[in-house]
Amino acid sequence: MSTSAYDAFQAHIAEFSDILNAISILKWDARTQMPPGGAQTRGWQLASLSKIAQEHFISEKTARLLDAAEREVAGDDPDSYRLRGVQQTRQYYDIIRRLPLDLVGEKAALEPVSEGVWAEAKRDNDFKRFAPYLKQQLALAKRQADAIGYADHPFDALVFEYEPSVTAKSLQVLFGDLKAGLLPLLREIIARDDGLKHTLWDHDYPQEKQKAFGLSIAQRFGYDLNRGRLDIAPHPFEISFTRQDVRITTRYDSHYFPMAFYGTLHETGHALYEQGVDPALTRTALSIDYLGKYPVGGTSYGAHESQSRLWENQIGRSRAFWNAHFEEMRALFPDQLAGADPELMYRAVNRVKPSLIRVEADEVTYNLHIMLRVEIEMGLLDGSLQVDDLPEIWNAKMQEYLGVTPPNDSQGVLQDIHWSGGGFGSFPGYTVGNIMSAQFLAAARRDVAGLDDALARGEYAPLREWLTENIYRHGRAFSAGELLERSTGGSITVAPYLAYLRAKFSDLYGVQAG
Amino acid sequence: MSTSAYDAFQAHIAEFSDILNAISILKWDARTQMPPGGAQTRGWQLASLSKIAQEHFISEKTARLLDAAEREVAGDDPDSYRLRGVQQTRQYYDIIRRLPLDLVGEKAALEPVSEGVWAEAKRDNDFKRFAPYLKQQLALAKRQADAIGYADHPFDALVFEYEPSVTAKSLQVLFGDLKAGLLPLLREIIARDDGLKHTLWDHDYPQEKQKAFGLSIAQRFGYDLNRGRLDIAPHPFEISFTRQDVRITTRYDSHYFPMAFYGTLHETGHALYEQGVDPALTRTALSIDYLGKYPVGGTSYGAHESQSRLWENQIGRSRAFWNAHFEEMRALFPDQLAGADPELMYRAVNRVKPSLIRVEADEVTYNLHIMLRVEIEMGLLDGSLQVDDLPEIWNAKMQEYLGVTPPNDSQGVLQDIHWSGGGFGSFPGYTVGNIMSAQFLAAARRDVAGLDDALARGEYAPLREWLTENIYRHGRAFSAGELLERSTGGSITVAPYLAYLRAKFSDLYGVQAG
Repeated sequence: MSTSAYDAFQAHIAEFSDILNAISILKWDARTQMPPGGAQTRGWQLASLSKIAQEHFISEKTARLLDAAEREVAGDDPDSYRLRGVQQTRQYYDIIRRLPLDLVGEKAALEPVSEGVWAEAKRDNDFKRFAPYLKQQLALAKRQADAIGYADHPFDALVFEYEPSVTAKSLQVLFGDLKAGLLPLLREIIARDDGLKHTLWDHDYPQEKQKAFGLSIAQRFGYDLNRGRLDIAPHPFEISFTRQDVRITTRYDSHYFPMAFYGTLHETGHALYEQGVDPALTRTALSIDYLGKYPVGGTSYGAHESQSRLWENQIGRSRAFWNAHFEEMRALFPDQLAGADPELMYRAVNRVKPSLIRVEADEVTYNLHIMLRVEIEMGLLDGSLQVDDLPEIWNAKMQEYLGVTPPNDSQGVLQDIHWSGGGFGSFPGYTVGNIMSAQFLAAARRDVAGLDDALARGEYAPLREWLTENIYRHGRAFSAGELLERSTGGSITVAPYLAYLRAKFSDLYGVQAG
Repeated sequence: MSTSAYDAFQAHIAEFSDILNAISILKWDARTQMPPGGAQTRGWQLASLSKIAQEHFISEKTARLLDAAEREVAGDDPDSYRLRGVQQTRQYYDIIRRLPLDLVGEKAALEPVSEGVWAEAKRDNDFKRFAPYLKQQLALAKRQADAIGYADHPFDALVFEYEPSVTAKSLQVLFGDLKAGLLPLLREIIARDDGLKHTLWDHDYPQEKQKAFGLSIAQRFGYDLNRGRLDIAPHPFEISFTRQDVRITTRYDSHYFPMAFYGTLHETGHALYEQGVDPALTRTALSIDYLGKYPVGGTSYGAHESQSRLWENQIGRSRAFWNAHFEEMRALFPDQLAGADPELMYRAVNRVKPSLIRVEADEVTYNLHIMLRVEIEMGLLDGSLQVDDLPEIWNAKMQEYLGVTPPNDSQGVLQDIHWSGGGFGSFPGYTVGNIMSAQFLAAARRDVAGLDDALARGEYAPLREWLTENIYRHGRAFSAGELLERSTGGSITVAPYLAYLRAKFSDLYGVQAG
């Protein structure tokens, strides 16, 4: 029996997928299990495997198998997984071949140095020390954008790695609409801040019980522990080594219950996506992270984030959720929740407060943190902003959007690691994900009769099944834009997300409907 | 600056070492952390990495670099690490070139599946379910033996991977000597069995305290937790990913304290070997497991086992050990050890009783379990025994050597994981290790003044330093036979081991000196 050209291509890609998954396992281990003494040799192991993965993918063998597979699948249905997989491999193959080796080497060499200097600069509140490294990262990012190519704005070439369906121009429109809706809502909320005071987090919530409750809800959402596990990590993440092994992490604060709990639900949302990919896509071109970026099984950073945010916020922070699950939580924490009720819990986990730090921000202010960063990235890349001016620019934007000014750069422009690693283009995914999450949930409500009744009973299978059918199972076969088009009939738009935020927070804060 | 031929060779080997260590990390994860659903895709990942490792090693690049390095180091001191590393790489290069790629891939893919079925079969006492997988493993082992080649017996080709210095024929001689010494001693002990009765294991020993005590002693022996960790595994093992990350596992029984404790000390012995390898050998040809077998850093399976058995038995089960550490244990378990003393504990952990399970066997009967397995392996490989007959054969040999018959296969032929992973040829190492452990300890006593005084005080640095100097630091630079020759002045011989057993157990059981 002769093997088809596609099968030969697929076998080669499966091996590439195995190397990438091995790298992910080494990373998971390094972040959750590895003894400290193993750090340096683990770094060498990861470097060798990354080199081997890259050599495997950009090889002449890939080119030959890809050419043959392209000819064989040329007549397939344009939506077929085979055709889509071959097309996507071609797209990334061409991109990666365009990156000069010296650029790749310089980036790899700069990253640990730059991250190290950033960590010191953040510790010492010394932006000037970090500035020269940020300039180097920026210069490399510009060279990378030039190598990849773009029609309009260098940002477009970089954001492609994370969110292929947006551009600088489309984001400016999207963010403009979002800002126009968010800022008035935020002002009204701030004026009514006293409404949501409580003392729930003055109590101690033992870690083991927090974990038990988080895992109980994660499983109720549909997280399959036969193909997953929950560990502790200082910087929580989800990671998968095929849909059969999808792991999540969280971190615990014995008082501030929401940290671990919503961290768990957030990563559970990512995990449901990964566990829901069609088994037929395992080890294929449609479940591969070609560029060494997160996500693996999902189609884009934003699509992935749409699922983590949907399960964390629109479900986990809803009134229906706490009506359904408060008693279960109180059974675990009877003393801590003695005087509480579902409504108090609902209000406690939804308090809005403009703050300095992105990763601690609430649903209303979060996207303002993102927009500020994206605007700065675009300005740096097109030359309209200069690195040396960043502290001032940052603080001015924080005052404009959030009404707060960082007391120092450590809590301002130096707070995130992303730029020190050269990760320009990754931030939009967070907000794109938020926006899409509302579009997907609205479409599910339209399609699934009795969805809200099910959610009110704490039944999540109807929602999860809709999401699996319309999003998860396809892996990377369709872009985020295509998934939206197929399931909502339209493209990305802020209206459903703004409607969700307005309805929820107007009610919580007694704001007049606009 | 031009790079030396040896340096270029070494850089290539370092990458090979990184791939092998990545494989080990995936295996450790599969045995201690992986959710059950991940077994099949993990098998594929291991298969791909094994194939990549083999392709890396048998490449034309290796041949070219090896040729050049051979020329460059030809004039080096015959004992130098550079020369030894190049020589050893040549030896394994020639062997591995003989292994077909599809055989390597099939073995790697079968291993996790076969191990999973074995675990279920053992749980359900269902040998028939496991038999087809054992037949597959056996067929692969025969193909492997044929590919490697052998003069006398297929077992010789396989045992080479674990203990290059023995053959089927030499083992028959060694085992004959040992059996001749052991069986009479065992008969005399059995006749006096009543002497060591006690009720220490009627109590409950909480797992967390067992772990704390085990780790405390492991660290006293010298196990560095900055470069290691202790986990739970159903079939305990030690594994390393360079000397910087050396992990051990054990399993707990809340009553039978010796299971976890001596399991921990056993794996600690292996770990001390790995952690004691000269840092200069990290990622070199002398700390590589060319054939994908355990041990990594040590020179042979038997040499490795000599260290696990030395620390577990000759040290951990000595009267001196319990005189030094009994009070520390009693502080953790005051109620359980209320009426006990060091001598009772010494006697309790040294009770000789013919039993069903190898890993629970005492020092006197242990090697009879091994001989039984080695005889079966030789018979399976030369076709004189059949897989389907194994339960009967097993039970008959148990009756012959130990006077006991397993009530079911879970406690009989299914008890060990080795064959499910295709590990034919690995068992002799245990007994070879026991034999060598007594030779090494006798040499240390000869060389280190006051060694027994130090041990009596619970001070292990003098012994560990002698072992590091004479064994550990060399990695694979010298064979087990060479290490014996260099440190004891002779070759492998059962006399010191038999003398140790006779002295210890004659005293314990009041047997007349022979």
